[in-house]
Formats: sequence, structure tokens, C-alpha cells
Amino acid sequence: MDENGNGLLVIKLGGTEGVDFQAICQDVAALLGEGRRLVLVHGGSAEATALGEALGYPPRFITSPSGHTSRYTDRRTLEIFAMAVNGKINTFLVEQLQALGVNAVGLSGVDGRLLLAERKESVISVENGRRRIIRDDFSGKIEQVNTPLLRALLEGGYTPVVAPLALSHQGETLNVDADRAAAMIAAALKAHTLILLTAAPGLLRHFPDVNSLIPELKLAQIEQAIEAAQGRMKKKVLGAQEALQGGVQRVLIADGRVDFPIRRALKGEGTAIFA
Amino acid sequence: MDENGNGLLVIKLGGTEGVDFQAICQDVAALLGEGRRLVLVHGGSAEATALGEALGYPPRFITSPSGHTSRYTDRRTLEIFAMAVNGKINTFLVEQLQALGVNAVGLSGVDGRLLLAERKESVISVENGRRRIIRDDFSGKIEQVNTPLLRALLEGGYTPVVAPLALSHQGETLNVDADRAAAMIAAALKAHTLILLTAAPGLLRHFPDVNSLIPELKLAQIEQAIEAAQGRMKKKVLGAQEALQGGVQRVLIADGRVDFPIRRALKGEGTAIFA
Repeated sequence: MDENGNGLLVIKLGGTEGVDFQAICQDVAALLGEGRRLVLVHGGSAEATALGEALGYPPRFITSPSGHTSRYTDRRTLEIFAMAVNGKINTFLVEQLQALGVNAVGLSGVDGRLLLAERKESVISVENGRRRIIRDDFSGKIEQVNTPLLRALLEGGYTPVVAPLALSHQGETLNVDADRAAAMIAAALKAHTLILLTAAPGLLRHFPDVNSLIPELKLAQIEQAIEAAQGRMKKKVLGAQEALQGGVQRVLIADGRVDFPIRRALKGEGTAIFA
Repeated sequence: MDENGNGLLVIKLGGTEGVDFQAICQDVAALLGEGRRLVLVHGGSAEATALGEALGYPPRFITSPSGHTSRYTDRRTLEIFAMAVNGKINTFLVEQLQALGVNAVGLSGVDGRLLLAERKESVISVENGRRRIIRDDFSGKIEQVNTPLLRALLEGGYTPVVAPLALSHQGETLNVDADRAAAMIAAALKAHTLILLTAAPGLLRHFPDVNSLIPELKLAQIEQAIEAAQGRMKKKVLGAQEALQGGVQRVLIADGRVDFPIRRALKGEGTAIFA
């Protein structure tokens, strides 16, 4: 049990190459045995990209005027994303956990209105210096987490495993960022700790120099870290900020490619960000 | 509320061409408004076949010595089946229901060990008159339904939507028959009525002559009906038998291609089979 007395951890598993799902699942089983309760959130971009390519519908990406890159999710891409993320990764992650004796339940944010998001009605894409408005993008920003379903599952002894889809206010399925989904879920459940497992040893001051690992950071210093972070790491730090502002006490960004990844993170390997 | 006092219906939606998911979802929303509680179970063979073909991995089928045909589910086929059935059909059926105000939760039998099945360790396939033993088939026969998860969801006001995957005793994901999954769930929940919606007006004495519809049948007469039934209908009648032997009071095999398909079935269109 942690200081919050609820022992609840929210853990995000990156879909990035090298993250060791089996080691994470074994750690989950061990921690549950010690009385911890856990909620897992996973990504799946790489798998969705591979499926799109195999189906002759490769992903396209949108670059926003501020330089952020995101998947252009038209309805066909959304279907491919749902098949890869909810159909394959979620199902077989639950299978892997069940084989280790963890009574996991797979969900996406569409189930029981778990994650309600605002659909971005129009997205500005910058292509070769020209701006284009995209109106058929099914992605969104999570605004609300419906905790009763998660709490009921946790109280029933289940371990929820959440895929990054959400429901819009109009009832449309949306693609959402998994790091920020994990952050919103951690805040809504008042989890003590959010762990973001990734294919890096933590947050690096000078990416990709692994010797520049930042071991600890305060929320007050996070704006600088967001500036400095590269690529996908930017969304993790943004997620960390949202979680801490939402009441989570610490966020650990840690290596998901090692054995005992969760326990190593809890012991202080990686980057710890405090409120 | 029905005679059992619980108002619980279990409804199987065929994946067959022509079954009108939108009409079924609208009927579900109306019935929930009248105080009914429902569990939906869906198939997805056609979608899995289409995905396999698009991925260059078309389905192969096994013909048993007694003439039954089933999908040969090696591990790659299982992944394709999970993507199509759990990733696409389940996700977007939940989306369709949510857009109508139904608080649906999608599950497969892997989640929370909802459906435990025995894996067929070896399957005999007859090809051109020669017998072949297949050992890498991931399909199974459901042996146990874990009702507490379904009951908790129903009591929480959710409508469970179940995809036909199960977990083996060894923790492997298995492909299971959706009609029989619905039958096992109906029996385990002691539902009063199981409705199997399909692309036919009901059980026909002389398939495909729609004028030979059998309006009513007793469990005692069902062996003959199993003999007479063609193709997929055989599994529905087998499912009906299992449900009635398990304590369900009536099974309705009815047309899923019409408007108000559930209410039409409840009013007596289609075939009613009684214990």
C-alpha cells in the first residue's frame, strides 16, 4: 500500500519497439500478489501502422502549425486503429495476463463511456509550408473519465486494461493519445503514482544521450522539460503535467525494455516527477 | 418483465449478410427503455474472412468426419479473428449502441475469464476422403460462464456486448461458436428467453423454402430438427438445445433483416422452441 492507502498504480505500456510486455505482465502479477491494485493503459501506434500497411492503407500524419505530429484518422484509419489496438494488442495483453493468473478485463474508452473526449472538428495540417484544414479526422482530447466502471472492476478483483479509444459527445469513436489517457485515468482515480514505461531509460536532458538522464523533476520545472523533450516524449511529459495537476503525487517515466520494469521504476530508476 | 421476473434477454446477432445491426440496436434501446435488461452476443465470421483475404491469409475450413465445417484457426487466423471480431465488430457495435444512449460495454470471453473453454487438442479433418490430424487449432467448446462479471455490469446499468472468444484452461485465447456462446450465457444467467437473430425467417422444414417455417417446436422434437437443419442453422438448433437443457424457457430463432427484429421475435414471428 502506498501513502494514499489505496495502493493504486496506473501504468502505461508503450507500443514502441523493445518494450517487454512479458516482463511487464510478470511484474504486474507479482505486484498484485503484494496487494497492489493496478490499471494498465496501452498504446498501439506501431501495430496500427503495420496493419494499415498490410491492408494497403498506410497511415498519414498531420503536422500542426506548432510542429506536433499526429495520425490522420479518417474513418477507415479509425477502423484499422481499433482492430490493431482493441482487437489485437488489448485481447492478447489480457490473454498474457490471464495466463499469469491476473484476472484482467480489456476495455476501450468507448465501453461504458469510460473516456469522453472532444472531437477536434477541424485540424490544421501544414504540408510543404501550406496550411490545409482537415475535417474528417476522428481524434480527440479526453475531457472526462467515468470512474464508476473502473472502480467496480477494481473492487471485483479485476485488473482493467484500457485501449486508447474514446467516445465523443456525439457518440463517435475517437483515437486518443494513450499517454494522456493514462494521465487522465490516474488523476480521475486519484492514483498515487502513474508510471509511463517507454523505450528509453527516462527523460533525457540531451536526447539521445542516455547519460543525460534527469532523475528527478518538480512540476514547477516541467515547462522547460516539455520544451526540451523530443518527439513522443513531449506527450509523456505533457501527460505527466496533466496527471500531477489532477492530483497524482508522482509520475515515473521509466524503461519498459528491462526485466522488472515496474519495480525498477518504483525503486527510483528512470525519471520521477513530483507535484 | 417476463415470467422469471428478471426481464433478462440474451440476444445473438448473426454476422451473416443482411442482418440489420442498426434496427437491432434501435430495438435494444427501446426495450431497455421499457425496463428490459439485455446481453448481446455477436458473431463475425464474414468480417474475419474478409480481413483474412485482405491480408493475404484467407481462411481455411476443416470438415469433420461427421460433416461439420469449422474455421481452421491457427495462431495467425486467431489474431485476424480477434481483430475483426473484437476490434472491429465489437467496438463499433458498442459505438452504435452508445450513440443511441445505450451504455454498452464490449467484452470478449477472455476478459475476466468470462468464457472458459476446452481447447480441442487435436481435430480430425477430412480432405478428399483422407483423414488428417490438426494440432495447432485454437478453437474450443465453452464449458463455463463466469456470471459475476456479467451480473455486476447488468446491475451497474450497463449492457454487455460479448465477442465469441474464450479462454482455455491453459490461458490460451480460443475461437468459439457465437450461437453456442449465447446459449451458454443465457443458461448461466438463467435468462428467460434467448433470441438468435439470423438471415432467415426462422427454422425451415425444407430449406430454403420460406413457406416451410416451423413456428413452434418442443425440446423433445429437437433432435429431428438438428438432423434437418442445414449449415449454420444446425449450430443454432444445437445452441437452442443447450440453452433449454440449461434452464432457459424459450429460444426464438428469428429474422434479423427486418425492422423491429427483437420485438417481432417476441411477438411470435420466427420459430419458438420451448423446454
